[in-house]
Amino acid sequence: MRYLVVYAHPVEDSYAAALHRRVIQTLTEAGHEVDDCDLYAEGFQPVLARAERQAYHQVGRNTSHAEKEIERLKRAEGLVFVFPTWWYGLPAILKGYLDRVWLPGVAFEVDNGRTRPLLHNIVRFAVVTTYGSPWWLNFFVVRDPGRHMLMRGIRYLFSPKVRTLYLARYGMDYVDTATRERFLTKVGQRLRDF
Amino acid sequence: MRYLVVYAHPVEDSYAAALHRRVIQTLTEAGHEVDDCDLYAEGFQPVLARAERQAYHQVGRNTSHAEKEIERLKRAEGLVFVFPTWWYGLPAILKGYLDRVWLPGVAFEVDNGRTRPLLHNIVRFAVVTTYGSPWWLNFFVVRDPGRHMLMRGIRYLFSPKVRTLYLARYGMDYVDTATRERFLTKVGQRLRDF
Repeated sequence: MRYLVVYAHPVEDSYAAALHRRVIQTLTEAGHEVDDCDLYAEGFQPVLARAERQAYHQVGRNTSHAEKEIERLKRAEGLVFVFPTWWYGLPAILKGYLDRVWLPGVAFEVDNGRTRPLLHNIVRFAVVTTYGSPWWLNFFVVRDPGRHMLMRGIRYLFSPKVRTLYLARYGMDYVDTATRERFLTKVGQRLRDF
Repeated sequence: MRYLVVYAHPVEDSYAAALHRRVIQTLTEAGHEVDDCDLYAEGFQPVLARAERQAYHQVGRNTSHAEKEIERLKRAEGLVFVFPTWWYGLPAILKGYLDRVWLPGVAFEVDNGRTRPLLHNIVRFAVVTTYGSPWWLNFFVVRDPGRHMLMRGIRYLFSPKVRTLYLARYGMDYVDTATRERFLTKVGQRLRDF
C-alpha cells in the first residue's frame, strides 16, 4: 500500500521524532511504499495567503500554490499523522497543511451548502500523538477536541470503508521512560497489524 | 477596561473583516482602551521554531522571541478572538499565536504534572467566529472541537470570575446577506452589553 506520513515536530531528538522514526520503520518493514512528509524539514509555510483565500472556492483555479502536496495526498492509500498535541490540537504547521492543501475540489466539494468528501483514495488513517496533560482532563473537561476534529471531521473525507487508528499517549508532562518505551512498542505493533 | 482583540483573516473585504471592524468600533465606543492585534497585517509567524521548543519549559528563558506579544497579553483585562473557523478550529496563524506566545510561565505553569493558570488578568473573554458548515454537523457529528478548545481548555487559564461569550454564525457556505447583517448587529449588541 502507498502511505503518506505527515509529521510535525521541530526537534530531532524529541519523543515525537522517535515516534516518527518508528512509524516510518514499521511501515517500510511491512512492505509498504512510504512518502515521508516532514513539514518542518521541508520548510512548509502554513499561513493561507490573501490570494489563496480569494481563490479558495474557485475549483480548478485554487491549487497553484500546493500542487506538489496535493499530488502526494492523491497518490496515498494510507495516511498517518504524527505530531504532539499542543493546545488540544494540531501544531500550527500541521493545521496550516490542512488550511492550504486540503482545498475544495481536492479534499471535499461544496454543493448548495452540502459538503461531499473527495479523498476516497484513503483507506487507512492513523494518528500517532502525545499530550502533555492527563487523559481525564482531555476526556471529561475539554472533551478532546483534537481527537474529534480528526476522527470525526477529517475522517469523513476518506473512503467509506476506511480503517482508522488513534494512538495517543497522554500525560507526557510526567510519564517515565519505561512508559514512553511501551508506547513506542505499541505504536509499532498496532501499525504493523493495521 | 483594556481589551486585546486578536484577529485572523487575510482578506480586507471579507465578512470576517466586517466582524473585526464591528468589534473594534463597539469596544471603542463603549469607552474601552483597545489594542487591535491583526495577525495577518502584523505578519505574525506562527511556526514554533526548534530553539523555541528546546527552551519551551525553561521558564525565564523561553520568551525572547515573543516579548512584545506577551506584554500585550499581560496588559489586557478583556480578550476577544475574531476569526473564521477552518477545519473545526483556529486558522494556522492564530493556532501558532497560542503555540508561540502562550508559554509556560506566561499563560500557565506546570508543577509536578499539574497545570495551573496564570492569566488571572483576563476577566472578559469573547469569541466571534464563523463556520462554513451547518450547526448540526458541528454539534452532533464533530462535537464542535474549536468551541470546546476555547471555552473549556483556554478559558481555564483566566480569572476564576471571567465572563465569557461565544458568538458563532454557522452555515456561512449558504446563508444570505440579511442573515449576515443580523449577525453583525448581534455581535455589536452583545459586546456592548458584555
